Amino acid sequence: MTSSLSVIILAAGKGTRMQSAKPKVLQTLAGKPLLGHVLDTCHHLTASKTIVVHGFGGEQVQSAMNSQYTHLPITWVAQTEQLGTGHAVKVTLDELPKEGQSLILYGDVPLVSCQTLVNLQHANTDGMSMLTLTVDDPFGLGRIKRDDAGNVQAIVEQKDASADEQAIKEINSGIYCVDNALLHKYLPKLSNDNAQQEYYLTDIVKMAVADGIAIAAIEPEHTFEIEGVNNRQQLASLERTWQGKLVADLQEAGVQFADPSRVDIRGTLSAGQDVFVDVGVVFEGDCTLGDNVYIEAGCVIKNAHIGNACHVKPYCVIDRAEVGAGVDIGPFAHLRPETVLSDNSKVGNFVEIKKSTIGHGSKVNHLSYVGDTTVGTKVNIGAGVITCNYDGANKSQTIIADNAFIGSNASLVAPVTIGDTATVAAGSVITHDVGNNALALGRARQVQKDGFQRPTKK
Amino acid sequence: MTSSLSVIILAAGKGTRMQSAKPKVLQTLAGKPLLGHVLDTCHHLTASKTIVVHGFGGEQVQSAMNSQYTHLPITWVAQTEQLGTGHAVKVTLDELPKEGQSLILYGDVPLVSCQTLVNLQHANTDGMSMLTLTVDDPFGLGRIKRDDAGNVQAIVEQKDASADEQAIKEINSGIYCVDNALLHKYLPKLSNDNAQQEYYLTDIVKMAVADGIAIAAIEPEHTFEIEGVNNRQQLASLERTWQGKLVADLQEAGVQFADPSRVDIRGTLSAGQDVFVDVGVVFEGDCTLGDNVYIEAGCVIKNAHIGNACHVKPYCVIDRAEVGAGVDIGPFAHLRPETVLSDNSKVGNFVEIKKSTIGHGSKVNHLSYVGDTTVGTKVNIGAGVITCNYDGANKSQTIIADNAFIGSNASLVAPVTIGDTATVAAGSVITHDVGNNALALGRARQVQKDGFQRPTKK
Amino acid sequence: MTSSLSVIILAAGKGTRMQSAKPKVLQTLAGKPLLGHVLDTCHHLTASKTIVVHGFGGEQVQSAMNSQYTHLPITWVAQTEQLGTGHAVKVTLDELPKEGQSLILYGDVPLVSCQTLVNLQHANTDGMSMLTLTVDDPFGLGRIKRDDAGNVQAIVEQKDASADEQAIKEINSGIYCVDNALLHKYLPKLSNDNAQQEYYLTDIVKMAVADGIAIAAIEPEHTFEIEGVNNRQQLASLERTWQGKLVADLQEAGVQFADPSRVDIRGTLSAGQDVFVDVGVVFEGDCTLGDNVYIEAGCVIKNAHIGNACHVKPYCVIDRAEVGAGVDIGPFAHLRPETVLSDNSKVGNFVEIKKSTIGHGSKVNHLSYVGDTTVGTKVNIGAGVITCNYDGANKSQTIIADNAFIGSNASLVAPVTIGDTATVAAGSVITHDVGNNALALGRARQVQKDGFQRPTKK
Repeated sequence: MTSSLSVIILAAGKGTRMQSAKPKVLQTLAGKPLLGHVLDTCHHLTASKTIVVHGFGGEQVQSAMNSQYTHLPITWVAQTEQLGTGHAVKVTLDELPKEGQSLILYGDVPLVSCQTLVNLQHANTDGMSMLTLTVDDPFGLGRIKRDDAGNVQAIVEQKDASADEQAIKEINSGIYCVDNALLHKYLPKLSNDNAQQEYYLTDIVKMAVADGIAIAAIEPEHTFEIEGVNNRQQLASLERTWQGKLVADLQEAGVQFADPSRVDIRGTLSAGQDVFVDVGVVFEGDCTLGDNVYIEAGCVIKNAHIGNACHVKPYCVIDRAEVGAGVDIGPFAHLRPETVLSDNSKVGNFVEIKKSTIGHGSKVNHLSYVGDTTVGTKVNIGAGVITCNYDGANKSQTIIADNAFIGSNASLVAPVTIGDTATVAAGSVITHDVGNNALALGRARQVQKDGFQRPTKK
Repeated sequence: MTSSLSVIILAAGKGTRMQSAKPKVLQTLAGKPLLGHVLDTCHHLTASKTIVVHGFGGEQVQSAMNSQYTHLPITWVAQTEQLGTGHAVKVTLDELPKEGQSLILYGDVPLVSCQTLVNLQHANTDGMSMLTLTVDDPFGLGRIKRDDAGNVQAIVEQKDASADEQAIKEINSGIYCVDNALLHKYLPKLSNDNAQQEYYLTDIVKMAVADGIAIAAIEPEHTFEIEGVNNRQQLASLERTWQGKLVADLQEAGVQFADPSRVDIRGTLSAGQDVFVDVGVVFEGDCTLGDNVYIEAGCVIKNAHIGNACHVKPYCVIDRAEVGAGVDIGPFAHLRPETVLSDNSKVGNFVEIKKSTIGHGSKVNHLSYVGDTTVGTKVNIGAGVITCNYDGANKSQTIIADNAFIGSNASLVAPVTIGDTATVAAGSVITHDVGNNALALGRARQVQKDGFQRPTKK
Repeated sequence: MTSSLSVIILAAGKGTRMQSAKPKVLQTLAGKPLLGHVLDTCHHLTASKTIVVHGFGGEQVQSAMNSQYTHLPITWVAQTEQLGTGHAVKVTLDELPKEGQSLILYGDVPLVSCQTLVNLQHANTDGMSMLTLTVDDPFGLGRIKRDDAGNVQAIVEQKDASADEQAIKEINSGIYCVDNALLHKYLPKLSNDNAQQEYYLTDIVKMAVADGIAIAAIEPEHTFEIEGVNNRQQLASLERTWQGKLVADLQEAGVQFADPSRVDIRGTLSAGQDVFVDVGVVFEGDCTLGDNVYIEAGCVIKNAHIGNACHVKPYCVIDRAEVGAGVDIGPFAHLRPETVLSDNSKVGNFVEIKKSTIGHGSKVNHLSYVGDTTVGTKVNIGAGVITCNYDGANKSQTIIADNAFIGSNASLVAPVTIGDTATVAAGSVITHDVGNNALALGRARQVQKDGFQRPTKK
């Protein structure tokens, strides 16, 4: 491996068959743009230079990537005409160092692995290495022709392949690792003197063979690493393959999935020991689950950290929440960003928590909205309690001290503080602070009118 | 193609293996009775006469179909005994025109396409055409025997097939297009002199061959078009195949599905550009989605129209609603019939809207019931607000004018009008109209009792 | 079949590849520990003695099983060292009767069927019978070697198999039925003189053949019956196979599943005629559904009984509830333990019912919490009504008599009784009993302040 690695990512295609207003490389797989997958892989390679060739929707691509990949400076090169892969690499020559190696990757081949690319670099001992794959059905793909000694001789396209060549099952992925000196030497010589009038990158293989360069060819661990995306079906298929891989890795690490084909992980999921994930669960962003976490059907969990021995009941939606240990959540709980649930707290059904901390052992069990609130320990918040945190112009804070009891259907009009061991009577509207140990009421006396004449059907 | 087309649909079977109280042709696929699928296809063919042969549960079938297919007058013919397919067609002769052609279809073969049937009509140049299919495993099915010139000679049933005939992979679908003159000529001659003592429709092929009629045979585009349903497994299998077809068509048109095998479309779904549909979504009836609509996991959407750039969060249930552009819905929102959400409005979690209009930019974010209500623009409806639209006998209207602010946990007792830029204090019960710019309160003053003795555990 | 049957279940393995703190036989399939499946099957066999050989996590295993299988006394035998399957059976000899037969089963082969085991017993006419299976790919498995007459001669392990033997497709399941006399005779003679230094149970086959005993070999009806579980992937795969079997059986009985691969049954489900189960439904424990029950997407139903013609709308969570006939539930209803819904009642969206009875024809349609409550017939409970059943220390009862009308957002502070045909005004907090036919109010008079100055953005 050389000390100076460049990466060239071809990302200029429109992806017409996607039927989209977005350029193809911005289509998402596992919640991340295709090009983002490649850039994340490059980030792990610690390349000295990352060149992305843009074309269709180039501004859109640059804007989307530059905002997310500030840690990975990208050199953008425009390919203004689509004249083939060889041309696409050629337009990078002005930016490409004279020395070192380059990986040639594709913005629409998102899942090539870091390990495979490291292997490809290592394999590049004589100036050029390529990633190939042996497949059952090579029809339509460029075949790797080798001589009797097994040396790569050429890439033969389907339409040019003889019967013998068509029987070859080793195919070209299009991914290479090439010495920059060779790229600078060969690319200017590419010709478009062919049926498509395109500049083919594969011609550099021919040139290298002519120069007596031994071309190394290695295979990736997984077939999906070289799969490209040209339409929605391929995108969905690759998505499912990738999900299967993520799930299999987690199974290997000991996670029990009720149905490995019915879970989605769009980002990273790390899980402790003896975690159970039921059907239909969706994870997005960075999620961590502690030991013995039990997640029931249909939960949607985004960027959340869930502590040991939590039980998340069916259909909870959790977004950017921090959940301690031994917490019961749901069913039908909605934890919004900046929610913190302390150990052994409980959030029940039809409860929404936003930008609030629920203290140790406290409970918000039914039909409540708690927003911009700090709840102490061992607090009981009754059914239907609302923190009125918004007056139409500003948001205000509610503070509920330890051991408070908030009666059902109470409205706490923020800013307001409920004291330690205070009690709020059911149905009260609380607009003033409540002292420690006090009972606060804000409701009318009950009256009865006997013999009431009910409304009748009009 | 002749100007006069009749359609004969055999729909007399019980479907014993369905283990159902319903006749087989009323079993549903993609939410529609099997027979309904065939009738819808016929409707597109603009047949001059549609004859349905009923038998088991005939009244139930007629009643179900006549109510739904008023636009397609059906001639009902009873087959009182189940004496075979030949007999089933024969009982229609009294109703069958002497001239023109007839398509012979089956109420339990629901997915034959309009295009295939048009092709079958076109193929019928010499009096009879039939739909066949080449399959990998023809075992058990009637084989299409052809002479050396490729002309159809006969249909050979499995039990009568020689070894050579068993090797034939072209099988009979049972679907024909036949000149009515031939049906009138052949059907009365059918004999039940066979092991099953049944009148076989396939015998008309034999008769036509004997008469020197060249029988055209064409294949459908999709295998599923000729698949029949005899038990729940076959029904479920055909359902999944059909769903796969609907999804593939939408992918082709540019819709992104997180998992093509986890979406259900029971009716028609039309979608704009760059629509994303997450896992577990169910569509029923006629649904349209605008451009850039993003639908998260598990939404159930029936007969709804959702405008451009709407974001429907997880687990919304939407039924007969009209949603404008840029609307945020959910998670856990329930939009019931006659809900109209104007552009840029927002309906949040645990909110039910029924027969109401929410104006431009207005918000109903948490735990509310809004029914029989007209909400103006830029209104904010706080958490836990209830429109009390029912007094036990009658439903009444609530009107909330532009810019109103309804405090949390307020109850609006209909009929009632809240004026423009009016404010309703949290927890108020509003029984009288509120004027423009006014503040309405209906709540008791807060009182505090210090040193309150909490209830103790009995 | 002999009158005295013992069962020996080997359950000593750790299951290292599960990456779990739990011993392998406590891993769950369809919600039940693997060993529990085997014990349940044994229970149906009415064995006279059930011996379980424990090892890793033995106390955990004994404690989990003894608490659940009180009806099936288990004789626990410790295998302190893991010296092979032969050794595992040998350690049971002190507990094993001298007469009768024994079935040798495995705690991690959970799905062997009762019928198969009965067949295996019947097959055991000369002292030993074994369960084998013919598979497409026998690689790695012990082959069943037979002589020309078809008599079992030996079990040949993969590594010892000649090319001819490797071609054998009949493999050993490890499940036997053996006369106890033979076990007492052979097991003490087992040797660990082999590469693994383990005592192989398969050696008893060799000994029996040497003694001229004819070994019967039968095959199970389903492949999954002999599948063992060694890692999470195998567990998940067997789970899906088992779910497929349960669903197929219910389809056979007439249940319509929208997608047979998207339903989970963890326990027993019995269903009447013309039941429809939509996608993503999860059943746990013992559930029964009456005729014409319609269950929409994503419902999670545990230990519940749902009567005829009920309609359960999307995303209901039901746990230990008893539901009468003609009841509408949901969407988003949560029925908790000890809920009883009488015929023709209705529970709507965002409603939680706990330990309560809802009378005939009564409705709780929106955003309510009803706990520890008895609701009579034809009661209407408005939106947002809360029964305040908990005062921070004790739970109390609410009684709502027939025909009562509870206005929206009312709070009923238990213990409290609402009389027959009584009316509670919207937003009232009810702390005292309400008489029959009376109207109860507990709310402040509405006041208005004109020209209210709204809060402004700070």
